[in-house]
Amino acid sequence: MTEELELLHEKLSYCFDNRKFADLRITLLDMEPADIATFMNERLEDKNQLKFFRLLPKELASDVFIELDTDMQESLIKAFNDKELKEVIDDMFLDDTVDVIEEMPANVVMRILKNSDPENRKQINELLAYPDDTAGSIMTPEFVSLSSKMTVDSAFDKIRRTGINKETIYTCYVTDNKKKLIGVVTVRDLLLADKQDIIEDIMTTGVITIETLEDKEQVALKFSKYDFIALPVIDKEGCLVGIVTVDDAVDVIQEEATEDIHKMAAILPTEKPYLKQSVFSVWKARVPWLILLLITSTFTSLILSGYEEKLTPVLYAFVPMLMGTAGNAGGQSSVTVIRAIAMGDVSFRDIFKVILKELLVSLTIGLTVGIVCFGKIMLIDSLYNNIDVWIALLISGVCVISIVMAKLVGCILPLFAKKCKLDPAVVASPLMTTIVDALALIIYCTISIAVFA
Amino acid sequence: MTEELELLHEKLSYCFDNRKFADLRITLLDMEPADIATFMNERLEDKNQLKFFRLLPKELASDVFIELDTDMQESLIKAFNDKELKEVIDDMFLDDTVDVIEEMPANVVMRILKNSDPENRKQINELLAYPDDTAGSIMTPEFVSLSSKMTVDSAFDKIRRTGINKETIYTCYVTDNKKKLIGVVTVRDLLLADKQDIIEDIMTTGVITIETLEDKEQVALKFSKYDFIALPVIDKEGCLVGIVTVDDAVDVIQEEATEDIHKMAAILPTEKPYLKQSVFSVWKARVPWLILLLITSTFTSLILSGYEEKLTPVLYAFVPMLMGTAGNAGGQSSVTVIRAIAMGDVSFRDIFKVILKELLVSLTIGLTVGIVCFGKIMLIDSLYNNIDVWIALLISGVCVISIVMAKLVGCILPLFAKKCKLDPAVVASPLMTTIVDALALIIYCTISIAVFA
Repeated sequence: MTEELELLHEKLSYCFDNRKFADLRITLLDMEPADIATFMNERLEDKNQLKFFRLLPKELASDVFIELDTDMQESLIKAFNDKELKEVIDDMFLDDTVDVIEEMPANVVMRILKNSDPENRKQINELLAYPDDTAGSIMTPEFVSLSSKMTVDSAFDKIRRTGINKETIYTCYVTDNKKKLIGVVTVRDLLLADKQDIIEDIMTTGVITIETLEDKEQVALKFSKYDFIALPVIDKEGCLVGIVTVDDAVDVIQEEATEDIHKMAAILPTEKPYLKQSVFSVWKARVPWLILLLITSTFTSLILSGYEEKLTPVLYAFVPMLMGTAGNAGGQSSVTVIRAIAMGDVSFRDIFKVILKELLVSLTIGLTVGIVCFGKIMLIDSLYNNIDVWIALLISGVCVISIVMAKLVGCILPLFAKKCKLDPAVVASPLMTTIVDALALIIYCTISIAVFA
Repeated sequence: MTEELELLHEKLSYCFDNRKFADLRITLLDMEPADIATFMNERLEDKNQLKFFRLLPKELASDVFIELDTDMQESLIKAFNDKELKEVIDDMFLDDTVDVIEEMPANVVMRILKNSDPENRKQINELLAYPDDTAGSIMTPEFVSLSSKMTVDSAFDKIRRTGINKETIYTCYVTDNKKKLIGVVTVRDLLLADKQDIIEDIMTTGVITIETLEDKEQVALKFSKYDFIALPVIDKEGCLVGIVTVDDAVDVIQEEATEDIHKMAAILPTEKPYLKQSVFSVWKARVPWLILLLITSTFTSLILSGYEEKLTPVLYAFVPMLMGTAGNAGGQSSVTVIRAIAMGDVSFRDIFKVILKELLVSLTIGLTVGIVCFGKIMLIDSLYNNIDVWIALLISGVCVISIVMAKLVGCILPLFAKKCKLDPAVVASPLMTTIVDALALIIYCTISIAVFA
């Protein structure tokens, strides 16, 4: 937290504790809703929450509410009277209402729905019906729609009249009488156009859209690729049903990145920030992969046991180094390819380009690391172990082969996962190590025994 | 790529090859600049690049240019005459010009600067002077500034007059006569206000800003926290010097996530997308960590050699499993904490909360995995190895202890890295495994020998 914010929080505490409510409201008016919510989450005792919330300037109340912790939202809703609840809910954009509802227990959801306008209630129910992770689940139906025959002047009139309840007014959507999306016009276009110009003549056609049931990952990708403030969401018939605004897209981008990072580290996706998660939910997210990886490691034990009579202790001592290097080398390739797939930079049809590149890279890296490995064995490991030059050569050679093998497995696995419609981050990262470990071990044992038998 | 886009690309190819330039232009006008650039990058032969670029509608040319590959940008600039170059450069926003310049060789940079307006040249040079990775390096000085005494009507006049050259017009910045930022007003506020209202009365004060020299990671965090379209950048004196728009912030967010993912996989940060990188630059990004990790693995070899006489082959066979489990368990914790730090969810002062949580989590996970491990050894490993119940108990016990140790190391390391102003993603992820491996091995060997000696 910045110092400035720290000071603001001090001031809020002081004003609240000393009942200086006029000062409090002036301070609040100058603050961002997210910062007020942080104050409430971190500094307020439970018994003061409702009292503080009632002091919020009306225009801020619902913006602050959506930024609060789920627990505080729930206890506030339970403490609100019906009028308060209705005010907060009616002031929220529908996508935010849906976000809140999705975290609440059934009885609270019923109370929220009961206190919404019939029209809103209908739309909330429609939004709730979209499966998680789809574009539909994160959109809001609150956009400005214009008709193509309007003048710029009447467009501004419509924006002034209805804009206050729309999540963005800066991109307006031009639809025909069947609600089919035919173009967009920005407020910038409108401001720079003549007042009597017809929307049709200044709108942009060929609009980039997304369908309600597409993955929200695609929403993130489209916002990275095109510099939009909002992305229109259409149904199967091409009718405009909602928009996703860039601030929600930013959240999706961060969540998707976190999810991929966690998956690559063998953690199942979780929704809440780390410190808010219960021990049980952390346990649930981490234990399945640990157990799976433990069981698959039976292969390495099996392989080592198979060769137990034939490997000398000196050769045994290098097993962790070889497996570690192979795992690291393979991880570099798989993670690079997984991220490139997620960013839309690489797809299955690039497989030969990718294999060729990884082959060249792995040969050059393999040779470099192999030479360093040889030097390290002769200079360092020989100090405490009886190692001759042939063993050093053998180990370095296996190191080179393992790196090439690991990098090829690492780059091919995610591409095939994607091809089979599996999640590359899940399949290719944690599992990759087990496969590469086992292969490296087999290479090492086979070659050692062939050479020294 | 979507089917629709594929079709558009086919159409462009057809029109271009058959010299149907009128159709070509009509198609182009309906396309997004990023999609035209993809077409040029992927489908055009070198000799056709300039010819195609000259066919672009004027209003699209510079928008397409900034989306092209660096190589094509460079060859186009070399092929442009001075007039063309000047048109493209003058049409670009200054932050984009700077992005292009940063990738060009010196002689091309000279030509670009020579063909810019004197005023632009001065601003470009100022922007180029900000260190990489700072907010200053990604901002643009092209924002709309208003004075506090203006009426809404005259504000609209100013926006209409100057807005076409500004990167965003939707957030306008109110500055005093010393260029100090005193408030913001959005076009939405302006539209909903009365024409004779004074800016001072409708502007929002207490604006969230960022300083020129702050890390661009902070830009990403502020856009995730607050729902902005643009973030104002101020210098040390509080004067407004530029803005970062949300589309650039989205790019920063994606880049920062990619960078963190790569660092955690022991890869040095690179700038270009994977398929555009040369084999040498991939080599350079990956080889340092592989060598460092290879050398640090000397510890594990050393430890294993130290116990070589005392560990039986059966006990040896479980070393990879134990090290693997400890590494995976530690990785889960370190990656979770690294990401939480990057998202601003966790900081050093939460260290005791984090340790307590990881302790509880690691005990529950340790016990679960330990029990499964015991079962696995008795049911599976005993099939091909002579294992009694005491060895199984010993190994499962070590497994529990290693998991607890690994998770504690994994959560503490990134927090200390952050405290020491080191990059948690670099320090805590690749290095963590080496530390955890060595510790797990020492625990295993010490306990085995104590029990069976």
